[in-house]
Amino acid sequence: MIENLRSNIRAMSGYTPGEQPRAEDIIKLNTNENPYSPSPRVLTALREALAGGDRLRKYPDPVGTEFRRTAGRILGIDPESILIGNGSDDILTIITRAFVPEKGLVVSPTPSYVLYQTLAELQGARFHTVPYFPDWQIPLPWPNPEANLTFIASPNSPSGTTTSVQDLERLAEELSGPLVVDEAYVDFAEEHALSLAIRGKAIVTRSLSKSYSLAGIRFGYAVADPALVKEFVKVKDSYNCDALSLIAATAALEDQESLRETRSRILATRIRLSEELVKLGFEVCPSQANFVWTRRASGDARSVFEHLKQRKILVRYMAYEGYGDGLRISIGSDADIDRLLVELKTIV
Amino acid sequence: MIENLRSNIRAMSGYTPGEQPRAEDIIKLNTNENPYSPSPRVLTALREALAGGDRLRKYPDPVGTEFRRTAGRILGIDPESILIGNGSDDILTIITRAFVPEKGLVVSPTPSYVLYQTLAELQGARFHTVPYFPDWQIPLPWPNPEANLTFIASPNSPSGTTTSVQDLERLAEELSGPLVVDEAYVDFAEEHALSLAIRGKAIVTRSLSKSYSLAGIRFGYAVADPALVKEFVKVKDSYNCDALSLIAATAALEDQESLRETRSRILATRIRLSEELVKLGFEVCPSQANFVWTRRASGDARSVFEHLKQRKILVRYMAYEGYGDGLRISIGSDADIDRLLVELKTIV
Repeated sequence: MIENLRSNIRAMSGYTPGEQPRAEDIIKLNTNENPYSPSPRVLTALREALAGGDRLRKYPDPVGTEFRRTAGRILGIDPESILIGNGSDDILTIITRAFVPEKGLVVSPTPSYVLYQTLAELQGARFHTVPYFPDWQIPLPWPNPEANLTFIASPNSPSGTTTSVQDLERLAEELSGPLVVDEAYVDFAEEHALSLAIRGKAIVTRSLSKSYSLAGIRFGYAVADPALVKEFVKVKDSYNCDALSLIAATAALEDQESLRETRSRILATRIRLSEELVKLGFEVCPSQANFVWTRRASGDARSVFEHLKQRKILVRYMAYEGYGDGLRISIGSDADIDRLLVELKTIV
Repeated sequence: MIENLRSNIRAMSGYTPGEQPRAEDIIKLNTNENPYSPSPRVLTALREALAGGDRLRKYPDPVGTEFRRTAGRILGIDPESILIGNGSDDILTIITRAFVPEKGLVVSPTPSYVLYQTLAELQGARFHTVPYFPDWQIPLPWPNPEANLTFIASPNSPSGTTTSVQDLERLAEELSGPLVVDEAYVDFAEEHALSLAIRGKAIVTRSLSKSYSLAGIRFGYAVADPALVKEFVKVKDSYNCDALSLIAATAALEDQESLRETRSRILATRIRLSEELVKLGFEVCPSQANFVWTRRASGDARSVFEHLKQRKILVRYMAYEGYGDGLRISIGSDADIDRLLVELKTIV
């Protein structure tokens, strides 16, 4: 049956997620997980849901009415403009399938999230990149406005930098196809692009994995024109979000106080880590996310990565064609970052 | 942005899931949910998982190693031949995207699960049907062997009937593309087609929604040639199954005794319901699933459906082009079925 596979699938190498080691004593700073626990309200809501077995036995609400109502109230937007997803990867898949035909074109700046290329390949579409300027700003006018779909991550990975809402709006106006602003990391940033989604200028996607410490439950959402959300619902699996994830996500959004606390702890650690890395001779990109992107003039990022790994500290080594490599370091707990800095001092 | 949608998406009407009413006093016999609670082991495993917050905070295992190991042991198959999915709808989506190009061809017998047509439409592919014989057997030789992908549900919905493994094997040998045997209901049947998957002749898909009472957690899997599973992993979202679903699914499979008990209760009720329906003048298809398909010579299925709905009993009214209509009634608890029979006696 292998010979019956579509050629675009055969040709793909597939996405490699960050390592998930089993050993307990490893410090994980490689997948941008949140070092702090989710809101206690999430755990309470899940425990209550388990008290009656019916939540497991019955199909979940296919459109997540309760989540949409809660998110609409908290974000100040129309619940009908919200699409629920099994993680924001599911959301990005749904949007790609809705807009990108075979042999179509997907564009994103580079370096950025490698999934955008994977999504294009899965559709049998072409993928073009537009290099960021060295200061991680996008070129405007935009050189590739004819794409079926354009992705911009803001904050971007690996850089942690943002594209201003003003630039995003100008970009959206130049494009002949839709613009997706991937805001997976936006809760750690100073600005967001929800206003563009509300005005029908862009599709904004969000994740609960990072800022709400819920990577394990898989929940994300998109905000877009309600007429567009109705079309996306046709594309998604009927029951793409399970009952427990919906309950957890709703409870998480209800606890904005917990989000604020977690956010300010991570931002404080991010400042400290950035300053210490600079003292150690690293180039550090000013981050608006829960990670920092760092390079060394000497270009020995891979050896630093290997050394840290031997010392049971995992960071993410990333190399991009035409750009070079570096280390993306997630903001862990203060204790984790202390250990990292101690080890880095012995290495460099 | 609506004008940028692919024309195949715009043209779709989308799948309408069975109604999920909010009122507590409604008897739901319309979505083939299991009336009995999942294994207590599932609830225990989930509660334990919640005790440490890390399961929620961290990304889940992308390939579900522990589930695959458990399922491999219980089914007596190679864990590498198992693909995990966010419900078996996710599995069917992954397989379709792997094999079916734009303008390709998907074939299934009719009447059957309407999702197969939706999956074809989402790919921008054509969808052809092959009518079942009146006794729900498939024509062999098969009239449409050139499809990129062929789906057969066994047991089939709405009929509850199975296609013999012998016929499935003969069909697989006639086809130029892969055969998917959708075994969502197989735990209520007398025969399964796993041997075909093991010998690389077909792809078998399964769901934990029905027999394991886990519709709410969304978990399904496929069994196929390990080389094919590796290709499917490229197509799926990296983290398509969340941590809690993986834990619940693994615990559910571990409790085969609970499955046997639930199964025998449902089978006993299925016999009783079928006999009573015949006494009331319904034509009942001999079912190997957790529902029965029933029609009336007088053809007033819709009015029976409406009457039952007014009396707060939901069954599924289904109409298929070129075939006609009928009622698909899920096997509920004995008390639910008693209520149904009382109401039916007042109607017919």
